[in-house]
Amino acid sequence: MTGSSGKRLYVALIHHPVIDKNGETIASAVTNLDLHDIARVCLTYGVSGYYVITPLKDQMVLVNRILDHWATGVGGTYNPNRQQALELVRVKATVAEMVSEIAETDGLQPKTVATTAKRHAGSLSYRRLREMSADATPLVLAFGTAWGLSDTFMAAADYILDPLAGAGTYNHLSVRSAVSIILDRVLGGWT
Amino acid sequence: MTGSSGKRLYVALIHHPVIDKNGETIASAVTNLDLHDIARVCLTYGVSGYYVITPLKDQMVLVNRILDHWATGVGGTYNPNRQQALELVRVKATVAEMVSEIAETDGLQPKTVATTAKRHAGSLSYRRLREMSADATPLVLAFGTAWGLSDTFMAAADYILDPLAGAGTYNHLSVRSAVSIILDRVLGGWT
Repeated sequence: MTGSSGKRLYVALIHHPVIDKNGETIASAVTNLDLHDIARVCLTYGVSGYYVITPLKDQMVLVNRILDHWATGVGGTYNPNRQQALELVRVKATVAEMVSEIAETDGLQPKTVATTAKRHAGSLSYRRLREMSADATPLVLAFGTAWGLSDTFMAAADYILDPLAGAGTYNHLSVRSAVSIILDRVLGGWT
Repeated sequence: MTGSSGKRLYVALIHHPVIDKNGETIASAVTNLDLHDIARVCLTYGVSGYYVITPLKDQMVLVNRILDHWATGVGGTYNPNRQQALELVRVKATVAEMVSEIAETDGLQPKTVATTAKRHAGSLSYRRLREMSADATPLVLAFGTAWGLSDTFMAAADYILDPLAGAGTYNHLSVRSAVSIILDRVLGGWT
């Protein structure tokens, strides 16, 4: 496999609409390490932007405070590698706001690809997504926090990606692991 | 690619000997999320055991307290998926103790594979490691915390794995991301 630039591929970490362990739609809290780990893997694989989607005002304030700490505070001086990665983060209240911004920046309406641990009929293979990542159309890979993206979100997405499958029936990966593996499958180059 | 059982593949998360940002050899602190995220990805990919190596007594106590919380405390009742993954975790003071235990369990001396973000001459390709994972010899994939495995550790390892390469020169992945991606490359099945 050869590497791809991923110049028009975005990652979205969705905190609403996602489901809790009982299947109810909720807005989840932002996790500090999700910002760091996912920003670092996004920068490593050349992702164009990492959107953190939360409609909660206090969560938006929290994320912006963390970003400020690294952009202009002591964090960036201590560890410039983290500062550089967090420059990819953009906070939006809704998926619609993110889509509008990407359409404006790239001049093309992006397609959304929902990720899930469950198998869906007609889901997209990794090989196909890898091919699509070389096309002109911007792609947004959407990842759900908590117990995953809501059915409403899944139904509205342009594509649903094949679930990651391991050796057995257990596939309860953290969202940090899922983003890492999926970006490597779609954009990684290795022999 | 087809999946592999990984029945004789182990993951070791090394807290000593690793280096700090100045290149000095240290014993790093255990991170709670390293236990969870890496255990979950290990179970997903059928890894035989996840060794946490730390010579620090208080860190060993801390790890065992976390494991107890999930094995017999309220954690396991709240989220049985996490409990199941953490059953893979074994805490040892040294790499030598781990190697002895694996040799005793599997009846064969394991080979160690050191991972690193830097390129080394004669490093092992992912394809070759994938082939080796089907052999009878047990393999230990060793990951360094902090700023990575010490030179002493690298020199003593049986193999050094190719570094992960992304789109550009940035490759400052979290150890959680690195373990996830490498296990998928070695043991994952996808189309």
